[in-house]
Amino acid sequence: MGVTERKSTGQAPTSLDGTGPIPGYHVRLGCDSPLRLDCGVELFDFPTAYQTYGRLNADKSNAVLVCHALTGDQFVADAHPVTGKPGWWEMMVGAGKVLDTDRFYVICANILGGCMGTIGPREVNPATGKAWGLSFPVITIADMVRAQAMLIDHLGIDRLFAVVGGSLGGMQVLEWAASYPQRLYTAIPIATALLHTAQNIAFHEVGRQAIMADPDWCGGDYLDQGKRPLRGLAVARMAAHITYLSESALHQKFGRKLQDRKAFTYGFDADFQVESYLRYQGSIFVDRFDANSYLYITRAMDYFDLVESHGGPTKLFRNTPVRFCIVSFTGDWLYPTPENQKIVHALNAVAANVSFAEVVSDKGHDAFLLDEPDFHRVLTGFISGAWERRQGHAAAQG
Amino acid sequence: MGVTERKSTGQAPTSLDGTGPIPGYHVRLGCDSPLRLDCGVELFDFPTAYQTYGRLNADKSNAVLVCHALTGDQFVADAHPVTGKPGWWEMMVGAGKVLDTDRFYVICANILGGCMGTIGPREVNPATGKAWGLSFPVITIADMVRAQAMLIDHLGIDRLFAVVGGSLGGMQVLEWAASYPQRLYTAIPIATALLHTAQNIAFHEVGRQAIMADPDWCGGDYLDQGKRPLRGLAVARMAAHITYLSESALHQKFGRKLQDRKAFTYGFDADFQVESYLRYQGSIFVDRFDANSYLYITRAMDYFDLVESHGGPTKLFRNTPVRFCIVSFTGDWLYPTPENQKIVHALNAVAANVSFAEVVSDKGHDAFLLDEPDFHRVLTGFISGAWERRQGHAAAQG
Repeated sequence: MGVTERKSTGQAPTSLDGTGPIPGYHVRLGCDSPLRLDCGVELFDFPTAYQTYGRLNADKSNAVLVCHALTGDQFVADAHPVTGKPGWWEMMVGAGKVLDTDRFYVICANILGGCMGTIGPREVNPATGKAWGLSFPVITIADMVRAQAMLIDHLGIDRLFAVVGGSLGGMQVLEWAASYPQRLYTAIPIATALLHTAQNIAFHEVGRQAIMADPDWCGGDYLDQGKRPLRGLAVARMAAHITYLSESALHQKFGRKLQDRKAFTYGFDADFQVESYLRYQGSIFVDRFDANSYLYITRAMDYFDLVESHGGPTKLFRNTPVRFCIVSFTGDWLYPTPENQKIVHALNAVAANVSFAEVVSDKGHDAFLLDEPDFHRVLTGFISGAWERRQGHAAAQG
Repeated sequence: MGVTERKSTGQAPTSLDGTGPIPGYHVRLGCDSPLRLDCGVELFDFPTAYQTYGRLNADKSNAVLVCHALTGDQFVADAHPVTGKPGWWEMMVGAGKVLDTDRFYVICANILGGCMGTIGPREVNPATGKAWGLSFPVITIADMVRAQAMLIDHLGIDRLFAVVGGSLGGMQVLEWAASYPQRLYTAIPIATALLHTAQNIAFHEVGRQAIMADPDWCGGDYLDQGKRPLRGLAVARMAAHITYLSESALHQKFGRKLQDRKAFTYGFDADFQVESYLRYQGSIFVDRFDANSYLYITRAMDYFDLVESHGGPTKLFRNTPVRFCIVSFTGDWLYPTPENQKIVHALNAVAANVSFAEVVSDKGHDAFLLDEPDFHRVLTGFISGAWERRQGHAAAQG
């Protein structure tokens, strides 16, 4: 397969806080044939970090690929090595859960451009012995998916039972279905969109400018200069965080409540709980995330336009054999229901097999990460039904 | 009156770009009795800069106070002294226009905390001979309005025909009506709210953190250190600017159009027009605005809660003689129609005289600054009707 595999060793990428190697699986891909990026650059022999849960069955038909979001990682259902917090989708992935690890073999890889062990701007460029920084090529979501396909090759899996993810994860799901329709049985894009709108791009640009405005960013070269643009990255996170919560969620959670005080201080401390919350979100984010990764991944999202990159509306998804389940949330204003419905419309226009559920939730975009029973019921129903149908297919063909 | 007046002289405040004194009227207020701020500090003998248009009539009944928004200033209908651009409400104020200067005497003062000649953090504290910086007391919208009332006293006007403004300007209008109900005949708050919501506060906090994260902010002391936090202020402006435009305005104006190129550059230049636009908005803003002023004014807005500060819903506006015209815009997601309707409801609850118009516009919050014929028709109708009624009152009493 042209790959070499290793469990975490001294050679494994180290975590951002310098506490040690990133645990889990590490593999080097592109050793025989490179990953050809949309920008024209070819990546050879590059690291990919991933986690798996459950066991691959004998006919390799039970694999589910989970695609993570902008600031997510491969630690779907085990503690984060830096923060110690539970996996970001532990609610969803495990024995008896929606993605039942007694039944499915669940895989999640850190995305290309990420900062948790897969090649990205914070990894060392072997050619120079220094961190890639801004010399890392600009990537696309299609590139991320190509890298994932190489990992799936490496694992010896021809066809995934499902590819599932929310937000940027959902964009990867869509790209999988568009680029490799024969390699997945079902696609479950959640709280996502066919393209990044002007407003989406605008918010990302604010975050990027906040990072680049920080002198400790050092033109992208901060790792080699022993610095990190923590303040700029925190501001970027704060701006993005507002888009993850609905106005009503902010109102219910914080309203105008004061933080540990009974009256205004007439100063610039965090008088309001919502200020304190945002500052905290910014401060903890910088412990676990790399500023250049943030630039690269947001850029990839801004470049995303699935219809455009797949030859237009009449070609996208044409004759797709994939079964789709699209889920949106009423309170999501980042990728609101109409954007998700455009996916449904694109699939309807080629008479694809698509179901759509809009889940009532006032939690905002982050609802896909939270305890939303209706959402979990929708997924459980679709996955169970698709799995039974898949088994029937297999039996009929067997 | 305890005031001294002077046209712009060598003593007048200088503009931010150092090109010279800020033109227009300058007056020192609080010379006999101070402005007592909500925070407890008293301001004596402080500068206020203002512009007027039209002539005050013999019985001083035709005065209209225009209240400007967060980054506005007193140059309503003449060229901005730094940018040279037309006044921010030239479309509205002038001979034969909505606020017809053949009929009305229009006044607009730079707000307390501003940076165009009225006392604020960039003015020199006479006690120290240095810029106030963060030693300037934190102000409220009620403080801004108290300062304006002192100016109206100075001008010898007992009762304004109208107080009008959008956004923060609208909050000042509401504060005027709540605090000085006998001193205005009509109140026209536009695209505004009774309080700042958690989401409003959150966006402002991102802007403040962006400014404070800039090392050139120097803990607020940048003026004395010969620096200015231009990068942080630009990021703050960019984040805020997204909230001024509707998603559909961004889509129509920019969509995913590229900036002077036919394909992605696979870099971090402004590939998209919307990125270029935001960067430009950030860059021109810092030429004309002071970072500490931005902190103080956003803080005042976040503190704004008119119901709370006026004794609750049963006391606010009780027995008000003021005639209100409330205007919202369908595309405004910063202070959307429901927030404006809460003003109407508060007024209805005390059986006040209130009309309400929701103007269909996809231009976002900034619609109040733009050419919106329906908006202008609504205001013209209300102002004409109120003026005729006011004349009738005067005749009946005469």
